[in-house]
Amino acid sequence: MISSCSLTSELLLSFYGKGAKECPSPNERIKLVFSKSKQFDLIELEQLLQSVGWSRRPLRRVRRALDNSLLKVGLWRHDEKFPRLVGFARCTGDGVLEATVWDVAVHPVYQGYGLGKELMVYVMDSLSTMNIERVTLFADPGVISFYKRQGWELEPNGRRCSFWYAN
Amino acid sequence: MISSCSLTSELLLSFYGKGAKECPSPNERIKLVFSKSKQFDLIELEQLLQSVGWSRRPLRRVRRALDNSLLKVGLWRHDEKFPRLVGFARCTGDGVLEATVWDVAVHPVYQGYGLGKELMVYVMDSLSTMNIERVTLFADPGVISFYKRQGWELEPNGRRCSFWYAN
Repeated sequence: MISSCSLTSELLLSFYGKGAKECPSPNERIKLVFSKSKQFDLIELEQLLQSVGWSRRPLRRVRRALDNSLLKVGLWRHDEKFPRLVGFARCTGDGVLEATVWDVAVHPVYQGYGLGKELMVYVMDSLSTMNIERVTLFADPGVISFYKRQGWELEPNGRRCSFWYAN
Repeated sequence: MISSCSLTSELLLSFYGKGAKECPSPNERIKLVFSKSKQFDLIELEQLLQSVGWSRRPLRRVRRALDNSLLKVGLWRHDEKFPRLVGFARCTGDGVLEATVWDVAVHPVYQGYGLGKELMVYVMDSLSTMNIERVTLFADPGVISFYKRQGWELEPNGRRCSFWYAN
């Protein structure tokens, strides 16, 4: 992370909406921005999720799932004409007692610079302003240490066990 | 489960709303009904949740959490004047790809008759009509066999690990 933040608040607000925040970038020529209100191009989002190995889903269903999500965060490579989506995460939940984080992804080209951690910090800060009691997530075994380093408790730890039911 | 169903569809609809369904009862004098639209008295709901050992929460926050839930199911002991809430479950989620079941409770007086299983069947049927891809839940260690018997997969099973983050 060599670059400090350099985009003006006016630019952040006009391009990326309320609550947008610049993300430290590994390259000073690349400006990265978190947004919770900038609209996604669903095809670009699907390409991002597929680049990290997730299965393809019908766009109509993805659109409905996003509409019904509590929080959607995009990590954008800033460009005044063609900002590109390079990271994503979303949460479902009741907005009060429970929230669950899903679909955390950073494009492979941008991995290895700590952007995933910054993305989770932005997500947790956003949930924190909503005053949510408890946040849960499911993660692939390969990223356990990633979450543990950030203070997440791996289950089962004797208190609770988690279950899947895949139709 | 000795009684067969005996309430008319008109009565179910008028008292308990669309999608209401009679639940097999351990006692023929007690009629039990599942509903996803009958309004809860929040104090009665809190009493039910406390009767199974959960901590008290501010009613204002509970109300908001219910408003933002994907599905709320009540199990009612039918009475034309004073139906009583004897079971509860709710789900959060995006209504398309993910749903998570929370707060499954059957009042201690009504436990041991298979009502919890019937409640989960009603919840899963309701989610199934929404065509949701995957359902998750967190459960106390004491009820692991309860969920396993119903086809739930306990995590971690090598594919996914679950995490908590309690503030």
